[in-house]
Amino acid sequence: MIILMKKNVTQTQIDQVTEWITSVGYKPHLSQGVERTLIGAIGDDRGKIHLKAAAFLPGVEKVVPILKPYKLASREFKESDTVIEVGHCRIGGGGFTVIAGPCSIESEEQMMESGYVAKKAGAQILRGGAFKPRTSPYSFQGMEEEGLRLLKKVGEKTGMPVVTEVMNTVDVDLVEAYSDILQIGARNVQNFALLKKVGHSKKPVLLKRGLMTTIEELLMSAEYILSEGNDQIILCERGIRTFETATRNTLDISAVPVLKELTHLPVIIDPSHAAGHAKYVLPLTRAAVAVGADGVIVEVHPEPEKAFSDGPQSLRPEQLYRLMDEVAVLKKAMEEIGGLP
Amino acid sequence: MIILMKKNVTQTQIDQVTEWITSVGYKPHLSQGVERTLIGAIGDDRGKIHLKAAAFLPGVEKVVPILKPYKLASREFKESDTVIEVGHCRIGGGGFTVIAGPCSIESEEQMMESGYVAKKAGAQILRGGAFKPRTSPYSFQGMEEEGLRLLKKVGEKTGMPVVTEVMNTVDVDLVEAYSDILQIGARNVQNFALLKKVGHSKKPVLLKRGLMTTIEELLMSAEYILSEGNDQIILCERGIRTFETATRNTLDISAVPVLKELTHLPVIIDPSHAAGHAKYVLPLTRAAVAVGADGVIVEVHPEPEKAFSDGPQSLRPEQLYRLMDEVAVLKKAMEEIGGLP
Amino acid sequence: MIILMKKNVTQTQIDQVTEWITSVGYKPHLSQGVERTLIGAIGDDRGKIHLKAAAFLPGVEKVVPILKPYKLASREFKESDTVIEVGHCRIGGGGFTVIAGPCSIESEEQMMESGYVAKKAGAQILRGGAFKPRTSPYSFQGMEEEGLRLLKKVGEKTGMPVVTEVMNTVDVDLVEAYSDILQIGARNVQNFALLKKVGHSKKPVLLKRGLMTTIEELLMSAEYILSEGNDQIILCERGIRTFETATRNTLDISAVPVLKELTHLPVIIDPSHAAGHAKYVLPLTRAAVAVGADGVIVEVHPEPEKAFSDGPQSLRPEQLYRLMDEVAVLKKAMEEIGGLP
Amino acid sequence: MIILMKKNVTQTQIDQVTEWITSVGYKPHLSQGVERTLIGAIGDDRGKIHLKAAAFLPGVEKVVPILKPYKLASREFKESDTVIEVGHCRIGGGGFTVIAGPCSIESEEQMMESGYVAKKAGAQILRGGAFKPRTSPYSFQGMEEEGLRLLKKVGEKTGMPVVTEVMNTVDVDLVEAYSDILQIGARNVQNFALLKKVGHSKKPVLLKRGLMTTIEELLMSAEYILSEGNDQIILCERGIRTFETATRNTLDISAVPVLKELTHLPVIIDPSHAAGHAKYVLPLTRAAVAVGADGVIVEVHPEPEKAFSDGPQSLRPEQLYRLMDEVAVLKKAMEEIGGLP
Repeated sequence: MIILMKKNVTQTQIDQVTEWITSVGYKPHLSQGVERTLIGAIGDDRGKIHLKAAAFLPGVEKVVPILKPYKLASREFKESDTVIEVGHCRIGGGGFTVIAGPCSIESEEQMMESGYVAKKAGAQILRGGAFKPRTSPYSFQGMEEEGLRLLKKVGEKTGMPVVTEVMNTVDVDLVEAYSDILQIGARNVQNFALLKKVGHSKKPVLLKRGLMTTIEELLMSAEYILSEGNDQIILCERGIRTFETATRNTLDISAVPVLKELTHLPVIIDPSHAAGHAKYVLPLTRAAVAVGADGVIVEVHPEPEKAFSDGPQSLRPEQLYRLMDEVAVLKKAMEEIGGLP
Repeated sequence: MIILMKKNVTQTQIDQVTEWITSVGYKPHLSQGVERTLIGAIGDDRGKIHLKAAAFLPGVEKVVPILKPYKLASREFKESDTVIEVGHCRIGGGGFTVIAGPCSIESEEQMMESGYVAKKAGAQILRGGAFKPRTSPYSFQGMEEEGLRLLKKVGEKTGMPVVTEVMNTVDVDLVEAYSDILQIGARNVQNFALLKKVGHSKKPVLLKRGLMTTIEELLMSAEYILSEGNDQIILCERGIRTFETATRNTLDISAVPVLKELTHLPVIIDPSHAAGHAKYVLPLTRAAVAVGADGVIVEVHPEPEKAFSDGPQSLRPEQLYRLMDEVAVLKKAMEEIGGLP
Repeated sequence: MIILMKKNVTQTQIDQVTEWITSVGYKPHLSQGVERTLIGAIGDDRGKIHLKAAAFLPGVEKVVPILKPYKLASREFKESDTVIEVGHCRIGGGGFTVIAGPCSIESEEQMMESGYVAKKAGAQILRGGAFKPRTSPYSFQGMEEEGLRLLKKVGEKTGMPVVTEVMNTVDVDLVEAYSDILQIGARNVQNFALLKKVGHSKKPVLLKRGLMTTIEELLMSAEYILSEGNDQIILCERGIRTFETATRNTLDISAVPVLKELTHLPVIIDPSHAAGHAKYVLPLTRAAVAVGADGVIVEVHPEPEKAFSDGPQSLRPEQLYRLMDEVAVLKKAMEEIGGLP
Repeated sequence: MIILMKKNVTQTQIDQVTEWITSVGYKPHLSQGVERTLIGAIGDDRGKIHLKAAAFLPGVEKVVPILKPYKLASREFKESDTVIEVGHCRIGGGGFTVIAGPCSIESEEQMMESGYVAKKAGAQILRGGAFKPRTSPYSFQGMEEEGLRLLKKVGEKTGMPVVTEVMNTVDVDLVEAYSDILQIGARNVQNFALLKKVGHSKKPVLLKRGLMTTIEELLMSAEYILSEGNDQIILCERGIRTFETATRNTLDISAVPVLKELTHLPVIIDPSHAAGHAKYVLPLTRAAVAVGADGVIVEVHPEPEKAFSDGPQSLRPEQLYRLMDEVAVLKKAMEEIGGLP
């Protein structure tokens, strides 16, 4: 952390800052510029937030953090890509995993049909929501445990691992009993109690970026899970909130190469929630392959116009079949690109 | 909800849409314009999300929602201002309530000192954090139950009601046992499990707007609490996330008159978190009085440079004294304005 | 345009609104719902902004626009893709055009070297800035006419058409004399005087989306140029401003399929300005091909560390060569995808 | 500027960076931390953008700017408040100036009536648009020179100085001939050619912040005008673009105390454009007084429902009269606050 002093700082003020740095356990380092004095605080960075209080001392203009606040999630801590294994399925490490299924589990029939569609398409993992985070208390809130049971059943019938969202710390054990992967939704990305709780799970966690979460904050949320002992985390970019309303959210596709540089964790994209309309899911999935993501999570429904939730963004079965064909062609092209000199 | 048909729509497509509207329980109403056909879906609006799936039908260009999605929170449902009574203190209904205290409860001494400062200043309610939502798992996470105990003790000594944040459904009963008001933090504004849980509490809820939450979504979160039976809710604008970085967040001061129009619930402002620096808290508090807010919640610390969290935005005691003086002058001016013809 | 009346509207208020609609030249159409009355204003939509004043009439809750405000730019006006021809080069209509060159024209040697690099790589069009829109008045402002002369010269030597930015109405004729395409920069996307002026040019216009321009506003800016008679417009998505700071701006990749649906104009991407760092330009260019863009515009510099502007986001020559190889592989894959059943 | 080196940097890489710093005219200063090496580049900061290219050198993790990029606009350059004098009117220096008038000049009658309303209310300066920046080419574009003539005439009749927008460099001389203050609109805040041109004017400039402009960028735009020799600049916060749609834009009220700290230039607020609806203009004007702004610019129209532009946000005459009464009461309260110990 670096402390920038004001233009006409006095020696007394400089002394106060250096003394204060020492008093909180760091080592001061002075740097005299033409116009300004900078004072570095050298030491372990975990206390940085504490150091920010330097902004209060007389003569201080601003405090500039230098180091990244996450450790376990960083490439520096672990250079090689983390690969998550679930059943016969691997996420990360060069493949491209398609997770598909309905937004909500609505009935055994609908779930079974969705499962067969996902399987037939060639998707590797099955999704389905049993606990639904809905903006309105009057909207369908999910089938809860009965939904979990159906999801597990369809997963077993089709031979696919399953993923579903958990929204409440008290439900973590229940969801863990039925699901192969625990999903933390965008609205819970900074629900720290929940992050700590899944940090103790033995199951992998699919952590969605929030609508207003910076990439650094997403990695800090991953750090919560990692620091509790669970290092099986899949990051998911699902669109951020911006001023643009033509799409439901704005897919931050650049987050993929940025995250690939900063962290060893696999990164997938959720084009369904990002775009909010099925017609944009195919082009955005192609972009996900080309930009180097490790997979996508998409919504599919046998009859989207009858879906209990997220109908407009759910793919019809034939759209999912085409999506898988397009992914295959592009994945091959990406391998060819990987082999370029 | 209104369905806008595409330019060259066919009669068959129009018939399909009207049949579908009927099939999902609404009454279609056709409106033929010069260029376009509009079809209204008449009926109770609670099924609106379901209706959105119309976007899928052939010939449909877009679906336009018409009614507000919240009911109990609306001015139409309840015209008169809701007033929250806590001890001798009233929030809403024309007064201006100042809630003050440290960001985190750090020790008995610090909490006691902060309490006396708040009392001496004339603040009506005491705040203090026992469970802290920190971006970093390595930052101070709060004193938890011991902190709650201290907060209650200081509240009793100073004769002030207290408010503190609850972050996890499993802690609601515990926090309720110690605190007069339950605070839901910005990051939990769409933690629906938590909203439902505090909806069953007998204690008032201070609901903070999230960094990414629209005013409509904030009211939907209030609706969650209201629909579970708790109608004692204080809304709090605390800054939204924008591209501007000169302040920690951007205080959306216009949210006050907008909310005053849409809802009967009291609305306060948190200038400390919005601005992120103590030096802006006084002018923003003045703006809060002038714009018609029902109060503010501010951070104060006997020695901000030693605070465990949010040091830079915590007021020094003498700044709080001055803030209360400024509030008094402006409050009197606002009464004079209220009396203008 | 639809006017939503308040809940307890009176017949007199309804009559006032319908009379007012008639008085401003539209035809009212009443639609009585269970809870609310809607009144449509039927007629040509060009007067919509005028109609918005209805928000003032007693009993009106809100005014909802229905039709798109642009005409000439819309797919409805012209269904087939517009293809821009410049020299032997075509933009739009299925190809993928790479425009490359330095951010600023700095010297004859630098421009010549950049031109040869672009040519050798296989880029189709040469870019280079002679008038530079710099945030700081103290930064390099461009070589102006001397730069234009150099750009034209290098374009002729390498046999490539050239594009450069024009920032001021008084410079349009000058820039037109030297450049094959006139670029309107992001900061001038709503400089309406400039849009009108280039609307009279015979040269194609490369119109960049602004940092805070919605897709609809971008199309309205294109409409300005179209309505003056120039229908040769290339739209360019170059990143929007959001809260995320890991990249210089946030590339709104979804804008490509959205624009492809709404307009007949070709759409390219500027990954250099969007990302702000050369290391992200390759993956984002791959995403541009896969999402269906008509091309990219990228910055290349023989020695980025010596560039007068935008050094960090300029590709080195060998990076541009690789980019072109990757584009070729993905373009072939996209053709294969186009041929899928 | 500070250069942060990567974790496992080599001595050779450090040497390369220090040599490069010297080669571009700065003095390197090494600071060895526990984990990282920092290298400062000491010297005049005007070349900072050039220095950013250091991001390219091997071993460099990131480049952190330290100094503010503006000079003439800064409080450090000029400590005392700049006061703009126009006729008998002063902007800045402790007063609160109300600028009022219609969005567009529509006819002699409408302008005359608006002028008398503004005068009767007690507003100090008259506004009115002759060149209108409209999103749509089909909307009313203003009366141009005829409008300027009317504005000047009404200004003279009522004895009020006038302000109007100039959008094009070629119109600056014309507008200067008629108007006492030249307004640069939000969309032209980074129209650098226009900024330079008004920088040569003898008339004061009212510079509006753009929808997408950071506070620092606004000051850089002021710096463009200042560096050309015109130091009579009034800054205007008029709402920034965010995800919230309840208001037209989000008024960044905190920008007032932030700007007051950073610059000596007066700062006013435009609540009409920020909120987009007349009903919010009064509370936001009160907030403007209380937060310490130097004034407001508001839209007033004798019959808002007939306005050619911005009808919904225009005050009716009686609303303006009330606004002035409220301003008077609050201004007195602010003086009382200024006198607090």
